[in-house]
Amino acid sequence: MDTSATHLLKDELDIVIPTIRNLDFLEMWRPFFEPYHLIIVQDGDPSKTIKVPDGFDYELYNRNDINKILGPKASCISFKDSACRCFGYMVSKKKYIFTIDDDCFVAKDPSGKEINALSQHIKNLLCPSTPNFFNTLYDPFREGADFVRGYPFSLREGVPTAVSHGLWMNIPDYDAPTQLVKPLERNKRYVDAVLTIPKGTLFPMCGMNLAFDRDLIGPAMYFGLMGDGQPIGRYDDMWAGWCVKVICDHLGLGVKTGLPYIWHSKASNPFVNLKKEYHGIFWQEEIIPFFQAVTLSKNSTTVQKCYVELSKQVKEKLGQIDPYFVKLADAMVTWIEAWDELNPATDSVKK
Amino acid sequence: MDTSATHLLKDELDIVIPTIRNLDFLEMWRPFFEPYHLIIVQDGDPSKTIKVPDGFDYELYNRNDINKILGPKASCISFKDSACRCFGYMVSKKKYIFTIDDDCFVAKDPSGKEINALSQHIKNLLCPSTPNFFNTLYDPFREGADFVRGYPFSLREGVPTAVSHGLWMNIPDYDAPTQLVKPLERNKRYVDAVLTIPKGTLFPMCGMNLAFDRDLIGPAMYFGLMGDGQPIGRYDDMWAGWCVKVICDHLGLGVKTGLPYIWHSKASNPFVNLKKEYHGIFWQEEIIPFFQAVTLSKNSTTVQKCYVELSKQVKEKLGQIDPYFVKLADAMVTWIEAWDELNPATDSVKK
Repeated sequence: MDTSATHLLKDELDIVIPTIRNLDFLEMWRPFFEPYHLIIVQDGDPSKTIKVPDGFDYELYNRNDINKILGPKASCISFKDSACRCFGYMVSKKKYIFTIDDDCFVAKDPSGKEINALSQHIKNLLCPSTPNFFNTLYDPFREGADFVRGYPFSLREGVPTAVSHGLWMNIPDYDAPTQLVKPLERNKRYVDAVLTIPKGTLFPMCGMNLAFDRDLIGPAMYFGLMGDGQPIGRYDDMWAGWCVKVICDHLGLGVKTGLPYIWHSKASNPFVNLKKEYHGIFWQEEIIPFFQAVTLSKNSTTVQKCYVELSKQVKEKLGQIDPYFVKLADAMVTWIEAWDELNPATDSVKK
Repeated sequence: MDTSATHLLKDELDIVIPTIRNLDFLEMWRPFFEPYHLIIVQDGDPSKTIKVPDGFDYELYNRNDINKILGPKASCISFKDSACRCFGYMVSKKKYIFTIDDDCFVAKDPSGKEINALSQHIKNLLCPSTPNFFNTLYDPFREGADFVRGYPFSLREGVPTAVSHGLWMNIPDYDAPTQLVKPLERNKRYVDAVLTIPKGTLFPMCGMNLAFDRDLIGPAMYFGLMGDGQPIGRYDDMWAGWCVKVICDHLGLGVKTGLPYIWHSKASNPFVNLKKEYHGIFWQEEIIPFFQAVTLSKNSTTVQKCYVELSKQVKEKLGQIDPYFVKLADAMVTWIEAWDELNPATDSVKK
């Protein structure tokens, strides 16, 4: 194992894990995660005790903690849904976040070597993205690759990378209808690539295996209102992905997808999922064109300003689909207020 | 070897090869290419005899043939440059074209199996593209893959695929400056993916290992004015790629890149290349923004109409960079006239 890579950024990165159970899955990740600080967001019944394997350095927040810290603003944090993880992004004081689901294990590359997912995410975040022109040999900053003939030289500096979206071997991240139709499908294809999602292109961001630069894009990583009391679930990461991509495009930041893979062990129940996704399946047909068309003004020069401007457009345009989006738009503003309260501006270069 | 796949579309596809030498490289391709018809475009001295290995079915055109067939319109076909290959696209009567350079050999996949590049191109062309939203598991139509959660259902039909852009193991397709800086770099990474280049995103299209649907996009596959008497070389495929992508986006057609790989055997001379590319390195800094911003009118409903409209904008906007682009814009029109002369409209659905 490459321990130098393992420990990279160990004082600048928090691992955020939403959970409702004991975190035995961490045993498998021990060689890779142990040097890092964990932020565990306990979902559901706060009286339950979550066991964390010995030797990990962590802080844990349950619903009572969230309510105490945020007061009335706690309404923007989802309950009984893994969307609650975004509370962890807010309380972190680090520059980088890696978030992973507790049913995700260490995957192996085709040579049989265990994949240090965190180290690959860090690599992705520390080298630039290339959203303005497609490179056919994928990430030009990777060893053994470069920009191909015809790639404009003025674009080869790239832009800062804000997001690294990792993938999953075994159980693919399918919606309920696809799960129902293809119950046996497993992802067995290891695609040895990292690539930048081009500017102007939306993608379905999955929160299972995701890293980002909190300073660059943190305030846009809001996972919305899902779960308890809401008409929708399983669109938390999608919502964040749409908002994040639009804001990254506006601010000149990059989003990468591809490596690293994790091993996704267990398919969630497709019948339960269908219930959660039901409205989203219809709504996304209008949400996607909205995000494809949205533009932000020149005055929106920070993530917070972009996000508040976006919330207004959500209220105005998507509010027509369902009153849920009016509530969501308000929650987006509450989220930013809470973020700024917990992360007061300093004299540093922090946005 | 999968012979059923090998022979797929054998009466509907021509293989176009530009060359100045004997085609011994075909020996290695024999199991894959022999059932297909070849169109060989002989560049340079027409008195030279090009030897083609026995057993291949081919037609061969040298410069005298091109001049005879096109008359004064032959001026739009480049001389002493592999850009001459596009003459082969024009004289073909088939629906599909595969074009390959004569220094490209059969590559092996990571399991050591020889790759039938043609069969993979055909697969790429026969299944839809998805330019309107990014799928994180790459080509959703591939076995073992699908659309991931959050992919809008209304976009899952995809759009017809017009172009399949294949890649290269061993010698990567680098420009002269990169060749000079990294003389020893070899592409050793086999990325097991096919993906659609998103709508609105340009890419550097390499003509070394390329297939397309002639009915859908043929008239836009013009490789420009390069080589003898021109101030530029090695931008023939790039030029075609920019035009093709803009027109595909306008007409709702797809462009795929990734698999198949071929084995690119020999790096061309970087000093010679620098001389050819010199102007292009500057010009592409203005050409790319031009193609990124260009829009075509609603009246341009066929590839020909799009291409003629594009030629006018090239003359007007890029003509300001250098008189070369005025000449190129005129050649674009000549190319379309010649195309229509050799491919008269029929009563069929052909555009």
